[in-house]
Amino acid sequence: MTKENRQFRLAARPVGLPKPTDWDYVKTQARPPEDGEALIAVEYLSLDPAMRGWMNEGKSYIPPVKLGEVMRALGVGKIIESKAEGFAPGDYVSAATGIQSYATLKAKDLTKIDPQLAPLPVYLNILGMTGMTAYFGLLDVGEPKEGETVVVSGAAGAVGATVGQIAKIKNCRVVGIAGGPEKCAFLTQQLGFDAAIDYKAGDLRKPLKEACPAGIDVYFDNVGGDILDTCLALINLRARIVICGAISQYNNTTPIKGPANYLSLLVNRARMQGMVVFDYADRFGLAAREMAGWMAAGKLKGKEDIVTGLETFPETLLKLFSGENFGKLVLKVDA
Amino acid sequence: MTKENRQFRLAARPVGLPKPTDWDYVKTQARPPEDGEALIAVEYLSLDPAMRGWMNEGKSYIPPVKLGEVMRALGVGKIIESKAEGFAPGDYVSAATGIQSYATLKAKDLTKIDPQLAPLPVYLNILGMTGMTAYFGLLDVGEPKEGETVVVSGAAGAVGATVGQIAKIKNCRVVGIAGGPEKCAFLTQQLGFDAAIDYKAGDLRKPLKEACPAGIDVYFDNVGGDILDTCLALINLRARIVICGAISQYNNTTPIKGPANYLSLLVNRARMQGMVVFDYADRFGLAAREMAGWMAAGKLKGKEDIVTGLETFPETLLKLFSGENFGKLVLKVDA
Repeated sequence: MTKENRQFRLAARPVGLPKPTDWDYVKTQARPPEDGEALIAVEYLSLDPAMRGWMNEGKSYIPPVKLGEVMRALGVGKIIESKAEGFAPGDYVSAATGIQSYATLKAKDLTKIDPQLAPLPVYLNILGMTGMTAYFGLLDVGEPKEGETVVVSGAAGAVGATVGQIAKIKNCRVVGIAGGPEKCAFLTQQLGFDAAIDYKAGDLRKPLKEACPAGIDVYFDNVGGDILDTCLALINLRARIVICGAISQYNNTTPIKGPANYLSLLVNRARMQGMVVFDYADRFGLAAREMAGWMAAGKLKGKEDIVTGLETFPETLLKLFSGENFGKLVLKVDA
Repeated sequence: MTKENRQFRLAARPVGLPKPTDWDYVKTQARPPEDGEALIAVEYLSLDPAMRGWMNEGKSYIPPVKLGEVMRALGVGKIIESKAEGFAPGDYVSAATGIQSYATLKAKDLTKIDPQLAPLPVYLNILGMTGMTAYFGLLDVGEPKEGETVVVSGAAGAVGATVGQIAKIKNCRVVGIAGGPEKCAFLTQQLGFDAAIDYKAGDLRKPLKEACPAGIDVYFDNVGGDILDTCLALINLRARIVICGAISQYNNTTPIKGPANYLSLLVNRARMQGMVVFDYADRFGLAAREMAGWMAAGKLKGKEDIVTGLETFPETLLKLFSGENFGKLVLKVDA
């Protein structure tokens, strides 16, 4: 029972936006599982801004993807063959499958999921790393208190939309920054944000100031660049800035733009703190249960932007950087 | 008994470095004290980088000095006339006297000091705001742990030298960044720093990396600019960066240079946090007692750079920004 496995391997380290030639599209045979392993037919793959960082050389929070390796990605799929105790054909799992249609992985790297409890893509969104990032970044690093004003950028993105909804659950005033009127309407009309500001509509400072009459207590930053600077100018005493990402800067070929207004941290005795979701792994289960409860209660909604076809990976990934995706970007391996 | 009071008043808001024409030098009469007030003959004045910020318009942690007002400054002096209970002629006090030879102030704004316990300039240095800034900035915001590596910039400056010595008392490895071989030798030979790096000697990164073989756990930043960026590139997991000042940026006429390496905060789950010393006022007494004990034990040394002559104020202040001062810059009002 050999299976054709389609893979995207990293062929070159991108300069700026990843180009088609930065990838090798390879058709090979899926490797049969050895003892302790299972073979998974990958159904959905998570496309995330962090992937851009993994493609660069150099020290980071995890090693870079090596040239020639299958591109790192989280995925969900069905076990079709197993030599691993506790995993049987038909079981669904999530894992770091990589961008490929089949993955052969060790049992310790698999997490069983229940497709009856939630549709598979939700395990890549609110019940996956995306949701965990929002949950721990906001609650553990941002430490919002009832009545405070929470601003989140990339607010219609997967992490941002979840951050804003959790902040509403915690009784904060929530202001989202997103690109375009459609995304902004979604935030206020569908997700209950108190206000949403279209950063593409012109100067951000004035509408943001109006939307935050009591200033900013927590700013959850997914984008960096000018938006971070504008928010820094409006923070309150003892504000907390969560540095979760900086998508505006990931494809820079010039040096990153540092936040010129960082001295607002001094004036306001504020802090800016980075977070990486893996640090909270021992509490993922608890967080997922709490978030599943909020979803069941209708307080927390996920939105996935699903693109079909593994072979579209190179161009689908770019939607993240153009801001074209609307919700969690998920690649469905096959139609 | 009228006294001629010499004052420097802010005449214009400086663009870049303060110019002589940004000041009015005024000779007037010292105002006799009213009920609840005392008249102080100012003996020493504290010149601090923060003064540059107070000269700018705009929201900050305290209101700006108004045009036409006596320039704000901390000072120590002797009471020569008192209508305030608990204060008698001959008592020594510290207070926000402003840059003038006589100050008439309310009792609530005076702190008695003991010239037998320490020379007067020490009350503007280790036992004053400078020492308090170092103490609370390092211990409360930086949270150094035994064995960690603490880096401090502006290390031969008043705050920096105290930060480094307190970090040594807390059994940290201490690396100072200062300008010039004389200052660096002072740090290692007189103050017990483990290493000192002359940022004027060329590329900072290589010697800093060598001086911090285990990376940087706490970086106490007095300077901002390129030095902050270089330190950000070398921080460890969960490092703490204390933003105390940014003297390299205070006289900019172009936008402030934000730290391009701020994403190191994300990768390292590190935090960057601002501090303003006034927030710790309720613990100043405790800190001063502990620091006086360290001074008595020979573990903590102050160095004051004393310039004589109130009338030299405009050019003496500039020593802070050229890096010419060596130790706490103090203006002695008269010879």
